[in-house]
Amino acid sequence: MSLKLGVIGTGAIGQDHIRRCSQTLLNSQVVAVTDINLAQAAKVVADLNLAAEVYPDGHAVINAPDVEAILVTSWGPSHEEYVLAAIAAGKPVFCEKPLAVTAQGCRRIVDAEVAHGTRLVQVGFMRPYDEGYRALKAVIDNGQIGEPLMLHCAHRNPRVGEHYKTDMAITDTLIHELDVLRWLLADDYVSVQVVFPRKTSKALAHLRDPQIVLLETAKGTRIDVEVFVNCQYGYDIQCEVVGETGIARLPEPSQVQLRSEAKLSNAILMDWKDRFIAAYDVELQAFIDGVRAGQVGGPSAWDGFAAAVAADACLDAQQSGQIVRIELPERPRFYG
Amino acid sequence: MSLKLGVIGTGAIGQDHIRRCSQTLLNSQVVAVTDINLAQAAKVVADLNLAAEVYPDGHAVINAPDVEAILVTSWGPSHEEYVLAAIAAGKPVFCEKPLAVTAQGCRRIVDAEVAHGTRLVQVGFMRPYDEGYRALKAVIDNGQIGEPLMLHCAHRNPRVGEHYKTDMAITDTLIHELDVLRWLLADDYVSVQVVFPRKTSKALAHLRDPQIVLLETAKGTRIDVEVFVNCQYGYDIQCEVVGETGIARLPEPSQVQLRSEAKLSNAILMDWKDRFIAAYDVELQAFIDGVRAGQVGGPSAWDGFAAAVAADACLDAQQSGQIVRIELPERPRFYG
Amino acid sequence: MSLKLGVIGTGAIGQDHIRRCSQTLLNSQVVAVTDINLAQAAKVVADLNLAAEVYPDGHAVINAPDVEAILVTSWGPSHEEYVLAAIAAGKPVFCEKPLAVTAQGCRRIVDAEVAHGTRLVQVGFMRPYDEGYRALKAVIDNGQIGEPLMLHCAHRNPRVGEHYKTDMAITDTLIHELDVLRWLLADDYVSVQVVFPRKTSKALAHLRDPQIVLLETAKGTRIDVEVFVNCQYGYDIQCEVVGETGIARLPEPSQVQLRSEAKLSNAILMDWKDRFIAAYDVELQAFIDGVRAGQVGGPSAWDGFAAAVAADACLDAQQSGQIVRIELPERPRFYG
Amino acid sequence: MSLKLGVIGTGAIGQDHIRRCSQTLLNSQVVAVTDINLAQAAKVVADLNLAAEVYPDGHAVINAPDVEAILVTSWGPSHEEYVLAAIAAGKPVFCEKPLAVTAQGCRRIVDAEVAHGTRLVQVGFMRPYDEGYRALKAVIDNGQIGEPLMLHCAHRNPRVGEHYKTDMAITDTLIHELDVLRWLLADDYVSVQVVFPRKTSKALAHLRDPQIVLLETAKGTRIDVEVFVNCQYGYDIQCEVVGETGIARLPEPSQVQLRSEAKLSNAILMDWKDRFIAAYDVELQAFIDGVRAGQVGGPSAWDGFAAAVAADACLDAQQSGQIVRIELPERPRFYG
Repeated sequence: MSLKLGVIGTGAIGQDHIRRCSQTLLNSQVVAVTDINLAQAAKVVADLNLAAEVYPDGHAVINAPDVEAILVTSWGPSHEEYVLAAIAAGKPVFCEKPLAVTAQGCRRIVDAEVAHGTRLVQVGFMRPYDEGYRALKAVIDNGQIGEPLMLHCAHRNPRVGEHYKTDMAITDTLIHELDVLRWLLADDYVSVQVVFPRKTSKALAHLRDPQIVLLETAKGTRIDVEVFVNCQYGYDIQCEVVGETGIARLPEPSQVQLRSEAKLSNAILMDWKDRFIAAYDVELQAFIDGVRAGQVGGPSAWDGFAAAVAADACLDAQQSGQIVRIELPERPRFYG
Repeated sequence: MSLKLGVIGTGAIGQDHIRRCSQTLLNSQVVAVTDINLAQAAKVVADLNLAAEVYPDGHAVINAPDVEAILVTSWGPSHEEYVLAAIAAGKPVFCEKPLAVTAQGCRRIVDAEVAHGTRLVQVGFMRPYDEGYRALKAVIDNGQIGEPLMLHCAHRNPRVGEHYKTDMAITDTLIHELDVLRWLLADDYVSVQVVFPRKTSKALAHLRDPQIVLLETAKGTRIDVEVFVNCQYGYDIQCEVVGETGIARLPEPSQVQLRSEAKLSNAILMDWKDRFIAAYDVELQAFIDGVRAGQVGGPSAWDGFAAAVAADACLDAQQSGQIVRIELPERPRFYG
Repeated sequence: MSLKLGVIGTGAIGQDHIRRCSQTLLNSQVVAVTDINLAQAAKVVADLNLAAEVYPDGHAVINAPDVEAILVTSWGPSHEEYVLAAIAAGKPVFCEKPLAVTAQGCRRIVDAEVAHGTRLVQVGFMRPYDEGYRALKAVIDNGQIGEPLMLHCAHRNPRVGEHYKTDMAITDTLIHELDVLRWLLADDYVSVQVVFPRKTSKALAHLRDPQIVLLETAKGTRIDVEVFVNCQYGYDIQCEVVGETGIARLPEPSQVQLRSEAKLSNAILMDWKDRFIAAYDVELQAFIDGVRAGQVGGPSAWDGFAAAVAADACLDAQQSGQIVRIELPERPRFYG
Repeated sequence: MSLKLGVIGTGAIGQDHIRRCSQTLLNSQVVAVTDINLAQAAKVVADLNLAAEVYPDGHAVINAPDVEAILVTSWGPSHEEYVLAAIAAGKPVFCEKPLAVTAQGCRRIVDAEVAHGTRLVQVGFMRPYDEGYRALKAVIDNGQIGEPLMLHCAHRNPRVGEHYKTDMAITDTLIHELDVLRWLLADDYVSVQVVFPRKTSKALAHLRDPQIVLLETAKGTRIDVEVFVNCQYGYDIQCEVVGETGIARLPEPSQVQLRSEAKLSNAILMDWKDRFIAAYDVELQAFIDGVRAGQVGGPSAWDGFAAAVAADACLDAQQSGQIVRIELPERPRFYG
């Protein structure tokens, strides 16, 4: 039987997920949708030819009797409310990042889920579902490079628009590394420092770009992440793990090798959407399969909370120029 | 609605396809199976928990009223009979390679399909569905390297067993290149020559290994394919297209780059099953989607026939040491 | 003490070698020069500020009492005469390729040198002095890939001028592979076949380009060399040796890796002069050191003869389209 | 005419340089040597068959009438004394690193040279003579990647002995980056911070390994250098320059590419001596050529001083864990 999904929010990412669930993934169907703009929600239903009802708001979607699980793809500030409501209704919920716009909001979700007693929440961090990161983690976990000591990472975009402010380097960009590197290392952050190199002339006046974020983990591993969102040349995600006996590097996306015009070259992607497109399918299929098997897995509410706590410290570090401690409360036994 | 499939042959590849259809792909279900060993067919149904009936033979599967399309995954010599029967029944049929064990057999299928008047047959050549080959074809078709002039290819296996004879380098190994290179170049073969280099000491006494197959196409493109099935080091598929202005190379499978033990290295696959595993999913989904849309596509009976004609000439060339002409009759307009 | 050199021929390559001997290499000085154009010889002496006498012809250079060794860098058809004269005078001679314009001419030199009783002649094949080829040979000789079975090679130039005719693909281009591959494999050629792929539209009307030369060695190793002199994209020399247990590939010239404009790229050289520039220094230093030590080494007159015999067969094969035998007389014991 | 050299110190590096000058380089001869162990100096003269006199001490070498230039390759603490004496004698001097064991010592040399009025001193930093670094600098200087904003570097050794202490990560290892990166960027350091990742279990108890050194330049460029001297897998020097429009990476040493044992691999060097061996020849030839042309160039006393000032700050930063300012006095106009 297909899993019956209710979708809250039919903007770009909401539409992508609806399309996925109805056209690409196995064993799911969208039966309920809503959006702050109801006309748009109705149009999406019509355009995609869905057998889905349009509800007046998220709570109505959550409480619709045929809805078995919820996708929260609405405006960030509304996530917490809907995730808490889904937990209250005892329904599994996949929530796009951020889980909540504050660490406290994430904590409230954690507490609600723990009180509920079984996992209901999967956060929409897709990188742990990327084949490259999984291969990298396998190399580490197999002991092929010994214990990890240092990570050298980069998150580069060709360019960003005027809306992109200095703090978004943390909340919109680095947030993916904050999640995936915890998962990769099975470790927690304990401190962070942000340094600002010479600013690129390609960035708008209001934006400090690039930035380097220096993280330390509980085990003492040191991570440097270059965040450079006007690098011009491509969307480029790098992750190199230096271990005691060797170094492992995240694969570059597979490309045709060309010899032409005095260059031996491989294309670099320009659009971030192309980079992790397969991972979005895999993460959502994992949610669907998990719910159907009675075992929600993947990035948890605790992971969302931990990323939020780290992000808050990074924002402090951006402002202060100091080394900022990252204090994560003890992990509830519930989260393993 | 799911496409209802009947599967003839529940050996290794049959089971793989049944598993695909019932667990991985969209919009298909297996409702009928048979095998020369009926007990095994029944066991597969039970093991995979299928709601499928076991029929006494392939013809019963083809004629079962609820069966909408057929997968032929039986012993090679039986393919022609079942494909012809499926055409006679007007039901779409996906046939694992070879389409038939002789070129004449393939021709009979072509004639039957043409007489039927619409495409019903897709041959199980999976490489045109491989992401790497598709990217390579896109580079050629976009004109990034100009007109193709030469192809340098290799098909290497770590080792083969005692059953593998010299002619199987053509019929089991090269057959994939014979198909995919025609598709890649949109061209036909006109001659072939086979040369035998110094034999590797790693091959059994009865086997000539490696071999080099030299093909010429109608447009004059020259292709060399090294077939080396005891190369020891890995399963390695290479394809380099030399065009008028540049060279494009089939991507290597994506791997974690390692620095360890005085080597900068990427793993090479050892098992052919890992190399094109995604392509098998894509080809069969394409068949299912095609049937549901009323448009069977992919490698056609004509493609199967053309590969068989070329393979026969390669076998002659192996024997004679001469340059052998490859004469393909005019392509029926039906095949575009 | 510096070795006192006489140089016959002060064209481009002659001037290069004179500059090398007087400015770059150790232990040599140019004391005598000549050229068919004596004024130009005088100008070179003046421009490079050499303490060298200009002689009326090559024989005068050879016989000048202070000249200890000869460099023959004159017009190809004159090489044989001067090399024979140097041998007659008992003076070591470095001769630019070709050693002679016919195989018989080379044979006469071989016979004269054997009669003389010690090695005097080094032929100007520079690739065996290239660091990359030497590293490749070391990998083979160390047994890292087992016995060589096949070589896949390419010799590509961006473009050639109108003077370049179809036979020059052998005599000017392939000649380098004919020499270096014999050395690499320590083996001799026994047959050759030339095939002509579809012609590139970038070649002039009179030229067949590309060509593929298929060689077989005494040990049964099969070699394919793509000769493509209007490939547009670069000067590119490829050599891949397929052995019984692995494959070794000639290093690409070392380059800065760039990420820019949606490409991960390394530059490919456009000018052949940049490709083996270091090897020219090494080969000539080896000659100088060899003479001073009383042991001329490097590519011998026999190697020059063997290359000429192979080249003649290649020219036959170009014309006939047939597989042509390459018959090399027994190697005199003198050449080891 | 050959440049007549006096060499002070005939230990390992002294012998290497003597061998270079007498056997590999152009236009130099060693006419005078000394060592704290005079017997050893005499043995070197005899072993290398030099026409050189053994003097009782460095001052005697400097003042020997036929000595035209000096190589200081003695014990580090003696460098300052001999360099100052050479300047006093008005003789050009090539001094192995360190120029002096304290920044003040370097400064005294700078002051003496400025007082002398022309350049006499070249410091033995060889990396600016490495072909790879030169190619990297050319890419930057040509504007191919825009203004440099960040450098990600690594200096890794397979392992170190018991004598290697934590501060030697700066004075013996990082010192090469401190020199070459100033040259590469044509910029000066203004601050440094050192962080200590989780210690590798492969390091001896007394050593903190790895370390990460974070430098800031006057132009605001940020540099991170990983120093990891027990990395096990190889001697590996990495330098990646992130510019406004692209990224350039120091070439890996050229190697034969191998396919064997399920790996596509290139060898990584294990011995640091192999990595920059050509650069040592080039730097010393540059000194010889410079002296003969009356123009000493290359790394200057000022560069040696600047490296020493930066190294002192790095040592402070190691101890304090703080961000330490690097204050370099104004550069004398003399140094351009």
